[in-house]
Amino acid sequence: MNRNMNQWFEDFSNGSMRALARIISLVENDEPIDDDLRDQLYQRTGQAYRIGITGPPGAGKSTLVNQMTKLYRQQGKTVGIIAVDPTSPFTGGALLGDRVRMDDHTLDSGVFIRSMATRGSLGGLAAKAQEAADMLDAFGKDIVIYETVGVGQSELDIVEAADTTLVVLVPESGDSVQAMKAGLMEIADIFVMNKADREGADRALRELSAMLHLRPAQAWNPPVKKAVAMKNDGVIDILETIGKHRHHLEDGDLLTRKRKQRFVKTVHALVSYRLKQDFWDETARQILEGHIESLDQKKTSPYRAAKQLMANYREGVR
Amino acid sequence: MNRNMNQWFEDFSNGSMRALARIISLVENDEPIDDDLRDQLYQRTGQAYRIGITGPPGAGKSTLVNQMTKLYRQQGKTVGIIAVDPTSPFTGGALLGDRVRMDDHTLDSGVFIRSMATRGSLGGLAAKAQEAADMLDAFGKDIVIYETVGVGQSELDIVEAADTTLVVLVPESGDSVQAMKAGLMEIADIFVMNKADREGADRALRELSAMLHLRPAQAWNPPVKKAVAMKNDGVIDILETIGKHRHHLEDGDLLTRKRKQRFVKTVHALVSYRLKQDFWDETARQILEGHIESLDQKKTSPYRAAKQLMANYREGVR
Repeated sequence: MNRNMNQWFEDFSNGSMRALARIISLVENDEPIDDDLRDQLYQRTGQAYRIGITGPPGAGKSTLVNQMTKLYRQQGKTVGIIAVDPTSPFTGGALLGDRVRMDDHTLDSGVFIRSMATRGSLGGLAAKAQEAADMLDAFGKDIVIYETVGVGQSELDIVEAADTTLVVLVPESGDSVQAMKAGLMEIADIFVMNKADREGADRALRELSAMLHLRPAQAWNPPVKKAVAMKNDGVIDILETIGKHRHHLEDGDLLTRKRKQRFVKTVHALVSYRLKQDFWDETARQILEGHIESLDQKKTSPYRAAKQLMANYREGVR
Repeated sequence: MNRNMNQWFEDFSNGSMRALARIISLVENDEPIDDDLRDQLYQRTGQAYRIGITGPPGAGKSTLVNQMTKLYRQQGKTVGIIAVDPTSPFTGGALLGDRVRMDDHTLDSGVFIRSMATRGSLGGLAAKAQEAADMLDAFGKDIVIYETVGVGQSELDIVEAADTTLVVLVPESGDSVQAMKAGLMEIADIFVMNKADREGADRALRELSAMLHLRPAQAWNPPVKKAVAMKNDGVIDILETIGKHRHHLEDGDLLTRKRKQRFVKTVHALVSYRLKQDFWDETARQILEGHIESLDQKKTSPYRAAKQLMANYREGVR
């Protein structure tokens, strides 16, 4: 097994996309990977620029990512994409958007796309998405894009770890109060008003700008960019704006600081996940089962169960 | 302190809304509450019917909850609402929707509304939302409504713990593929197509129905209800459909099973939260700090840091 693993890592180092795919799968499926190998890979990271893209469902994020990828490829840059997509049992996995996207780049070895599922996954998604991004970075991708349907906390955690975060809105869902409610306003480095050829786009843009002006001026004030990703309108401008934000970060020690934050977030996510796996052993499961059985007689409560489980864990570790 | 706490619980038992608000605040702010008291309160739960309401930002969830609450009050039922709202530093807390909602019921002692923030909270939101709902149940509310801007995993966890879960869509965001992407299709017991007087409503309804027909027939096939919550159109029908779903659950042992699932979810959430608090003590923070400092020399990785932290934790517990 271990020699086999070493072989995969060697192939990875030699630029094998199959090895890259395989190693990301190991991470995603919680298969044991030697921490030293992980360590070695991590030492090779730090070259890729990481872009996070989020926004409400239907904002056209996949289309935008697709167009951005085409442009980066034209500039000679290689691209890795981590699409965090809630999968549905209806479709059994890959979703329409991904299929479309995949088809566009399927013959291009400079693009690597991986979808990660939120539902039904074994947990630890934030840590896994970061590690997959690290793999893409170590593999030598120039650009790593995280894309999530972002409203939930764990999805926000993922994109927030990027160097530049884009929040994509559309006129219809672009009601600024709603975007604010979804917690998207605070994490944006750049706003994209997509589908800007639709009715209501100007009103939506005005509302968003008005909202943003309520904030005290900062060293970087998130610009709002219009786009029609489907027609490739405005996408070059978005890439240039990402470049400006990158210069802004590199100008001070901001990029280093962002990367430290990403390190801390990854450690937190890893620890949470490992603790949980450690905790829920056979004994813990049996204790919980016992409490569930006594639930009918109203002889327990979640607080009593949690207390006993914590005591048992401390006992067990000892 | 403890006598004080006992006093609050006595007032709570005597129906003091101030005590209810106070005790929910204790939970939300992680102040120590005696587990025996928590236990006693939990013994009084099981009377309230719990309704979860979720959907994309801008779907009109708050308005719907407001109208439903009015109707339940007309039926003589008391209502408790847990609104899980990502707060924004822009507004410093309460959001427009809540203000509107609050104003409608502020003089009605039969309605209790509590907003809980997702961003910047101390964590453990799912556990806290469940405990707040338990408090409302124990206090004697007939109906408990959880409302969340639902796309993320932790938000879905909250509404999934309800007896009946409503997913609210609107024609604009109602593209079924998008709702599916957001993981909303699997958790719905009832779909509400809100703002059904808008253009595109019929198309959206057809799409949604077509999607739902792809599923194998189940004992309960989630119906799709049209509504214009703002005009109070279709809200009575929604309440009746909730009643039907309730009968469906009560007919078998489904309600009991749902409540067991809720128990398990609450225990899991409590344990995760307590483990995390236990783990991140002063020593753990210092270890992490050390790794951050050696990051510049590329002498660490998140995996190495997590490994050392886990080892230290096991050591420390011992």
